[in-house]
Amino acid sequence: MSCETLPGFRACYPENGTRRSYIFEHWRTAAESFNFQEYDAPVLEPLELYIEKSGEEIVGQLFHFEDRGGRSVALRPEMTPSLARLVGAKANSLKRPIKWFNIGEHYRYERPQKGRLRAFYQFNADILGEAGALADAELIALLVQTLESFGLGAGDFKVRLSDRDLWLLLLAAEGMDAENSATVLGIIDKMERNSREKTLELLAGVLGDSAEAFMETVASVVAIRGFAELEQYFKALPLEGALLETAKSRLADWRVLLDALEHSGAASFVEIDLGIVRGLAYYTGFVFEAFEATGEGRALAGGGRYDDLVGKLCGQSMPAVGFAMGDVTLGDLLEKKSLLEVAEPTPDFVLVIGGPAERAQALKDAASLRAAGYCVEYPLKEVAFGKQFKDANQRGARFAIIYGSEELESGISKVRDLEAGKETDYPRADLVELAESLFGEGLQ
Amino acid sequence: MSCETLPGFRACYPENGTRRSYIFEHWRTAAESFNFQEYDAPVLEPLELYIEKSGEEIVGQLFHFEDRGGRSVALRPEMTPSLARLVGAKANSLKRPIKWFNIGEHYRYERPQKGRLRAFYQFNADILGEAGALADAELIALLVQTLESFGLGAGDFKVRLSDRDLWLLLLAAEGMDAENSATVLGIIDKMERNSREKTLELLAGVLGDSAEAFMETVASVVAIRGFAELEQYFKALPLEGALLETAKSRLADWRVLLDALEHSGAASFVEIDLGIVRGLAYYTGFVFEAFEATGEGRALAGGGRYDDLVGKLCGQSMPAVGFAMGDVTLGDLLEKKSLLEVAEPTPDFVLVIGGPAERAQALKDAASLRAAGYCVEYPLKEVAFGKQFKDANQRGARFAIIYGSEELESGISKVRDLEAGKETDYPRADLVELAESLFGEGLQ
Repeated sequence: MSCETLPGFRACYPENGTRRSYIFEHWRTAAESFNFQEYDAPVLEPLELYIEKSGEEIVGQLFHFEDRGGRSVALRPEMTPSLARLVGAKANSLKRPIKWFNIGEHYRYERPQKGRLRAFYQFNADILGEAGALADAELIALLVQTLESFGLGAGDFKVRLSDRDLWLLLLAAEGMDAENSATVLGIIDKMERNSREKTLELLAGVLGDSAEAFMETVASVVAIRGFAELEQYFKALPLEGALLETAKSRLADWRVLLDALEHSGAASFVEIDLGIVRGLAYYTGFVFEAFEATGEGRALAGGGRYDDLVGKLCGQSMPAVGFAMGDVTLGDLLEKKSLLEVAEPTPDFVLVIGGPAERAQALKDAASLRAAGYCVEYPLKEVAFGKQFKDANQRGARFAIIYGSEELESGISKVRDLEAGKETDYPRADLVELAESLFGEGLQ
Repeated sequence: MSCETLPGFRACYPENGTRRSYIFEHWRTAAESFNFQEYDAPVLEPLELYIEKSGEEIVGQLFHFEDRGGRSVALRPEMTPSLARLVGAKANSLKRPIKWFNIGEHYRYERPQKGRLRAFYQFNADILGEAGALADAELIALLVQTLESFGLGAGDFKVRLSDRDLWLLLLAAEGMDAENSATVLGIIDKMERNSREKTLELLAGVLGDSAEAFMETVASVVAIRGFAELEQYFKALPLEGALLETAKSRLADWRVLLDALEHSGAASFVEIDLGIVRGLAYYTGFVFEAFEATGEGRALAGGGRYDDLVGKLCGQSMPAVGFAMGDVTLGDLLEKKSLLEVAEPTPDFVLVIGGPAERAQALKDAASLRAAGYCVEYPLKEVAFGKQFKDANQRGARFAIIYGSEELESGISKVRDLEAGKETDYPRADLVELAESLFGEGLQ
């Protein structure tokens, strides 16, 4: 057949659908326990929305086209620009802080590879309208609890926590202007993926002869893991006046964030690591990424503060912090840790039907049981008794109800417990009451 | 802001998100109670997939484009072709009957209007691998139970049931060949929307002078509502040989279908109405559409048998019957009937925090309660006690837990029942146990 699934897209058979639902349910449960509310936005958006946010270079990574009405449109590569528009449009009427989440699919035209597809689901959670570090802490606590809810522990994942504000202070102390700072942050962001030589070459393009010395500074900063060390390092920087005040106040923010993470029980998953910069230029403060504890693989999640973006995109200034967690890397990790062994749903009852005459009562009972929420299956054609029992077992059904002429005549419901392998006759009465009693007996 | 939501697409604020989830949950619950399993397929598919199924004319209704790899692709306008591919690819290993459902978004480039958007959700349910009328009955029973589960009754909606096989027999009795039959069925399909004159003109193009007499035949057939009348009409047709046998066997199928619908409790919602033809040429037997009982508005759902499509699309012959139900017309009807008044979720607990010193214990308790599945909210900055209580009430929280210096020193948890307006002191202990007892007390 010529019409295969496109590269980087996934067909989802029921056995995988069960896993997908399992991941989505955990995402939703975690978000709701933190009192985040679910929103959604179109899958197709004006291309301009992404260019305004990320610049022209984003276009090369998008599925974009001109629609029949001549509009330049793109399949959404991420949620944040749509979120900014939704929030911006009702900025004055929404109660703050705005705590919203979404579970949705996103699309990027990239080379499909391990942990990266062209269509992937993301769990997005954002807090808007609150600038303080307690909002960042709430969001990181949600990230940690979400991963913990799958059964992942401190040995399985870590959250690397960094701060673009501290980096900007450091670069200011080095005498760098805003433009060079942005370029250098971009270089630091890619440092882990590039060779030492490559990084040095890139830095020399900005800093000339001082690149080598600067690289040593960077190396010592990204090695910092403790807050005492971090505080000491930044207190020792040659900063004066307003910059000095900024540094003091920023270290106080760090204290608030780390204390809150400690009290929330998230601290054991969080590691100070200024090696994280997050390439996207719109991040403005704390940034973080979650990784498998071994450091292998792509990020499980990433996020940070973006206080300027809503104002830039919709003219309504609004502080914001958020993260996105993808389903691909997470699914791979859960599978590796045997935490994605989700049982497929099985019917509560299979109705074993003797023949056309017995079908009338069976269909009636099926309708009642289904309306009461029980999962009921029966054959859609005439099938021999033995084969029906075999099917019921294959389907993993809990109970079979037998509709033979004898049962109908004598007014009984014959129920076979397919796990215990024993049959019981009940006087034919309200089947839903019988089901309640059976599942009361059967499942407790 | 320039980047508005595209025409025919919907932004979804949390208050609407709650309604959407409500609709999806009812769809899923109904499907699962009938033991249908959830699958999914890509949102973006090869354009060819839709042309193979529906012909070139579909292209004008699609969002389609060439991707960066030079592939002609389209946003899916419907689920059936993708379903056929998924099932076809594993035709030999899937246990039959295959009962699958999906809840997903679909896209059509059409003029947005009442009940019709460019992006809409559909609940698709299909049974593949079973040719008998009991499969059609199972699917119509699911359709009816799904609508009933929202609180809609026999006064609110009806399912119009028709049969393309009977139409083909009728046209054969009129001496029409296959090509003319297809054209004439297309004309009958549009009869309700076109004027009498227009229909007559179209029929005359095929039938010449006999168009007027034929139109009277059609009028008498679409007026039939009872099965006795239907049986009588088709038994009286001048059919011979194989066609006569086909007619007899088809009326027997009708009997099986109607009996099963009667026993399932769905019959009171179903009306024989051969005015339904369903334009799409791939339907092969029973077809049906659900409408508001008044007949107003677009169809709530539509479906039917399509025994040839899987074979056509993927070379693996497989009988199939399915329906799709959209969220737009359904949502409009539920709103009109006041059946979509879904309460927004509210927090179980709001923590009222005296100051930074008291926050440590509050954060710790929040983490435990959230991990246990309770929804907990607290202020993300220092806020006066009075304002915190006001916020808690505005948010519709059930309980407030008060973290003052007094409470912490004396080792108590002070809990205010915000509905009853009374405070109780509990010895500080396991908060989750306390929550269980509170919700035990509070909600029963």
